[in-house]
Amino acid sequence: MKSRFLLLTISLLSSSLFAQEARNTKSEPADHIDFLDDQQVLDEFYRLALTESNVYPWLGEMCLEIGPRLSGSPQADSAVEYSARLMEGLGLKTWKQSVMVPVWQRGEKEIAFYRAESGESGQINILALGGSVATPKDGLFAPIIEVESWEDLEKLGREKVEGKIVFFNEKMNPENLYTFHSYGHCVKHRWGGAVEAAKYGAVGALVRSLNMRIDDFPHTGSMKYDEGIDSIPAAAVSTEDAETLSAMLAKGEEVKVMMRQSCRTLPDKESFNVIGEIKGSERPEEVIVVGGHLDSWDVGHGAHDDGAGVMQSLCVLELLKKIDYQPKHTVRVVFFMNEENGLRGGKKYAEWAKTSGETHIAAIESDRGGFTPRGFHVDGSETALEQMLEWETILEKYGIHQVEEGGSGADIGSLKTEENVLIGFVPDSQRYFDHHHSENDTFDQVNKRELELGTASIAALVYLIDKYGLK
Amino acid sequence: MKSRFLLLTISLLSSSLFAQEARNTKSEPADHIDFLDDQQVLDEFYRLALTESNVYPWLGEMCLEIGPRLSGSPQADSAVEYSARLMEGLGLKTWKQSVMVPVWQRGEKEIAFYRAESGESGQINILALGGSVATPKDGLFAPIIEVESWEDLEKLGREKVEGKIVFFNEKMNPENLYTFHSYGHCVKHRWGGAVEAAKYGAVGALVRSLNMRIDDFPHTGSMKYDEGIDSIPAAAVSTEDAETLSAMLAKGEEVKVMMRQSCRTLPDKESFNVIGEIKGSERPEEVIVVGGHLDSWDVGHGAHDDGAGVMQSLCVLELLKKIDYQPKHTVRVVFFMNEENGLRGGKKYAEWAKTSGETHIAAIESDRGGFTPRGFHVDGSETALEQMLEWETILEKYGIHQVEEGGSGADIGSLKTEENVLIGFVPDSQRYFDHHHSENDTFDQVNKRELELGTASIAALVYLIDKYGLK
Repeated sequence: MKSRFLLLTISLLSSSLFAQEARNTKSEPADHIDFLDDQQVLDEFYRLALTESNVYPWLGEMCLEIGPRLSGSPQADSAVEYSARLMEGLGLKTWKQSVMVPVWQRGEKEIAFYRAESGESGQINILALGGSVATPKDGLFAPIIEVESWEDLEKLGREKVEGKIVFFNEKMNPENLYTFHSYGHCVKHRWGGAVEAAKYGAVGALVRSLNMRIDDFPHTGSMKYDEGIDSIPAAAVSTEDAETLSAMLAKGEEVKVMMRQSCRTLPDKESFNVIGEIKGSERPEEVIVVGGHLDSWDVGHGAHDDGAGVMQSLCVLELLKKIDYQPKHTVRVVFFMNEENGLRGGKKYAEWAKTSGETHIAAIESDRGGFTPRGFHVDGSETALEQMLEWETILEKYGIHQVEEGGSGADIGSLKTEENVLIGFVPDSQRYFDHHHSENDTFDQVNKRELELGTASIAALVYLIDKYGLK
Repeated sequence: MKSRFLLLTISLLSSSLFAQEARNTKSEPADHIDFLDDQQVLDEFYRLALTESNVYPWLGEMCLEIGPRLSGSPQADSAVEYSARLMEGLGLKTWKQSVMVPVWQRGEKEIAFYRAESGESGQINILALGGSVATPKDGLFAPIIEVESWEDLEKLGREKVEGKIVFFNEKMNPENLYTFHSYGHCVKHRWGGAVEAAKYGAVGALVRSLNMRIDDFPHTGSMKYDEGIDSIPAAAVSTEDAETLSAMLAKGEEVKVMMRQSCRTLPDKESFNVIGEIKGSERPEEVIVVGGHLDSWDVGHGAHDDGAGVMQSLCVLELLKKIDYQPKHTVRVVFFMNEENGLRGGKKYAEWAKTSGETHIAAIESDRGGFTPRGFHVDGSETALEQMLEWETILEKYGIHQVEEGGSGADIGSLKTEENVLIGFVPDSQRYFDHHHSENDTFDQVNKRELELGTASIAALVYLIDKYGLK
């Protein structure tokens, strides 16, 4: 294996000289990108990702043998051990970073149905939101009232809301080409709907799933309660059933819903971020982080969210190893714990980073699914964005065209400083919300090649940052 | 509905004046693209495609209520009638163009198993290739011999091949980012493998499915026989079973396969291309064609191949209608019949076009699946490619970055002249061969938004060609 990078190095030597010559002719600065060299290295990343990477089998093992990995669950513990073994197996310096995480349990499968004044009734598919309290043991049975916004709630007022289950039915806007923009607009109802509804005396909250499709999968996700406001049970309802409820209400009839969920919150528990690294040869105290989150919701496999992201991050280091590339900076993979319902792992890592004596020059997160790569969102200086746009010229060959200013990722957010650059890996977003936080986020929904191309794309970026820096 | 284009026109008027002003300032030629106007029209195509287009429900109806549509089958007849009704319903001038098509029938479901010298045995999943002859009624039972190329066959020679089933086991090359390049390399074994094998006295041919994944779906497709060479039965074997057979053979044992298929070819039958158009207001005799093929293989739903392409093509005209756009040239949608096993519809249409007194200035085919749009492949003059690259600057906003020289589509190929431009719509290619020609090409594997975005992308191109011409 050692011979591969040597061969590559030798084959690059002539082109490197050629590139040097080309630069001299054009009087470009000597530290300009060696496009020829770099393109060959990047080609090799893509070739290896598509032929030899372990990203797909490792994701498969985690999804099919461990399953979903909610913080504090036995599966999350298994995933921590499995991840550490993979990192050690790759020859990375590996450690686990202790972090206390919340423990929320769904309990028994939820039950819900509706009954209209006319007598019409049917079952509906709900999933308790993460952090929700239980309903009374025999369930909650109350009329529902539909709203699309906080303004709707305010207009209705306590008189019309009290004693009811508020049904938040805002649809994700299909007009946005980038689906995360639609998510960003609607997610407040899932996060804060129960609190807003309780302010007007509601006894429960049902939230239309954050799903672009009409289907039968309810999509869970995190929610909050505020001190001094009643904690009422909240659940997501599938888009199909949201349409049904809305159609029933549109007839002007009273519609009652019975919902039963037995979820509960236990005391915090110790868990871990799992960390592996290749020490930098020239500037070991300067760190490039690449990561995703190891935890997931407790339904499906957490395959796209975010099994894909952690395995891609790990396999970026696998690719560096495969070409025997020795980074100048320390390249570190972090599997963050508890992104979904607390972000404790991201916060813990950032706190530790402040005291570690290191500088985090860049961090990249993959947490938008294992789909075909489209680009990167950059949270940094204008110079950094310009540099990234220059790199786009050699990334275009691989379908990377969307290098733009934008958010990075929840886990790495706390690492931001004035000097560094945070980057979010951006795959194609069209299918993401078909899967996100639902039973439909399973391994069979991940395409091997799309996943592999993402790995190569992030490796390409890590290589360029390591070689040229990014400020 | 009429008012929508008026409103759009009014809202564009001010920006149009602004664009004029901008042009004057920059001293650009007066016939330069009105980027501002065009961007707004294109925005409207994408908005409407994502909110109001019928492309997804119409594809669903065809897939779920009619099913697969092999040339000459009753389902193909139903699909012709359904398509004509849709076109008439849109207010298009609609007609059916008679074309005689081959009639090949699969007969009973294929049966196959292997038995190794050691006694190990198992079932294998095969699918007769389209056009294949049947095996003897009780099946064909013979040793298999594995090859990867014509050269392998030649080296083995008649002595080692005679009386055996040749097992073509070349894998699709995973290194190509654009998967159709890998398909182009391997497809000769499916098309001509039976003929080459028969030259050396083989009694049957098994071809590894043209699938990038390892799974259990055999993928059929067309094949040929040559006069003077024995017609031996040929079938595709799933990639999973190809791996199994190859592993058995690698042990050095003799492996025999029993395969039974009862397919047959009946006399040609009348079928139809289905055609609808909006007559051009200024140059009605100059035609822009947009199309795909209505027929499919007889397994799955023919959803990506090419139900997606025909419904996208039709809904391009739906989008033009929705904004009350009156094209200068005639815009014609053609649902070609019999692309899969004869290309009779494409040839018939091209013959007719020569005598119709019209000029086909451009033709666009969508036949690479209903996935997220990435670009267009252009078969035309250098000037045409340059013009398309200029348009790329306003298409980039919608994720269209790959405008390149390349092939267009099988159905429109015969329309090529020295003057005109043929264009292939290029969606993301990573998942296409997971579905192509197999039981896995079903409607549930089509993402609504990806399909809609393709429709809007083709509509955008048709609009630009109609407005500015393309030579």
